[in-house]
Amino acid sequence: MKPAQSLLSSGSRLLLIPGRRSVGLRGFATFKPKMASEQPFAFGPYKIDPAEVFYATSLSYAMVNLRPVIPGHVLICPRREVKRFVDLSADETIDLWFTAKKVGGQLEHYHKASSLTFTIQDGPQAGQTVPHVHIHILPRKGGDFKENDEIYDAIDEKEKELKQNLNLDKERKDRSFEEMTQEAGEYRKLFL
Amino acid sequence: MKPAQSLLSSGSRLLLIPGRRSVGLRGFATFKPKMASEQPFAFGPYKIDPAEVFYATSLSYAMVNLRPVIPGHVLICPRREVKRFVDLSADETIDLWFTAKKVGGQLEHYHKASSLTFTIQDGPQAGQTVPHVHIHILPRKGGDFKENDEIYDAIDEKEKELKQNLNLDKERKDRSFEEMTQEAGEYRKLFL
Repeated sequence: MKPAQSLLSSGSRLLLIPGRRSVGLRGFATFKPKMASEQPFAFGPYKIDPAEVFYATSLSYAMVNLRPVIPGHVLICPRREVKRFVDLSADETIDLWFTAKKVGGQLEHYHKASSLTFTIQDGPQAGQTVPHVHIHILPRKGGDFKENDEIYDAIDEKEKELKQNLNLDKERKDRSFEEMTQEAGEYRKLFL
Repeated sequence: MKPAQSLLSSGSRLLLIPGRRSVGLRGFATFKPKMASEQPFAFGPYKIDPAEVFYATSLSYAMVNLRPVIPGHVLICPRREVKRFVDLSADETIDLWFTAKKVGGQLEHYHKASSLTFTIQDGPQAGQTVPHVHIHILPRKGGDFKENDEIYDAIDEKEKELKQNLNLDKERKDRSFEEMTQEAGEYRKLFL
């Protein structure tokens, strides 16, 4: 996150900082930045704050994870709430995978990784817990998991936790909103 | 596999049956069907017999697996030998996922499954053993694996074995060529 001073000097860039929190700047009235995409993104029955989204197209969006399995573990979703991969339109399918390819390439480089895992758990019997198509992307490095398959075990565990934690009745136990939006802010710079 | 009698009566359909084995028909000379796509498909440094391929486009192909983790576990590959997902052209990316979507939908129905797992192990640190992009598709059913993540463990194990077994110096230990081409023949009917 940039210090307030650099935010002050960056002019219109302020508008690129989405968030539900007010931004207080010394000597200025507290204000909340506005942008077209400030509406929450749908993720099944849940709403994702735009500040957790670091890249978006007209059909897809990329968000940071509440409980990433490894650094850079993010999710790519269609904007439309679609349960199964087969139900995506041709345009949505193309856009989703172009987005995944672009995000994967950037995050692999950013995290100094050397491989990527792409996975869709398409339907409840495949481990999907939130009924909204999402691609898991994980930047991989040698030795990040003792056995490669352990990463999927971790994905499954996190997917279950994700559902629990998106339940707004519960308090988030893990990463703070600030930590997540800071990460999203870092990634957002990769796509400017 | 149709009996010889029905093959005889099916006329030009004979040409749709690819294979490296000669087909013997009672009373006729042994012959080998020819078709445009009889050239083997590239899979990294290996060659895949067209009889193991059940669906193909100008850019992608779908093949049965030497050692499937579960029934219907197949692989979708670009025809061009490309190591990493990011290196696919836009057209290849679109065609690969359109193919995966089509094949996944058909095989889920064929195997009376209710979900699908789609996975790309993109690079060696993600568990990729054959350096050629491939999507694993697995039709999933309730209780097919005790824990969902176990299927990935199995994929990893099979991926290692796949590499060993594609090494032509070694004898195949698992499924026979006949068993695989019969399965491919069944699937091929789904796309006619």
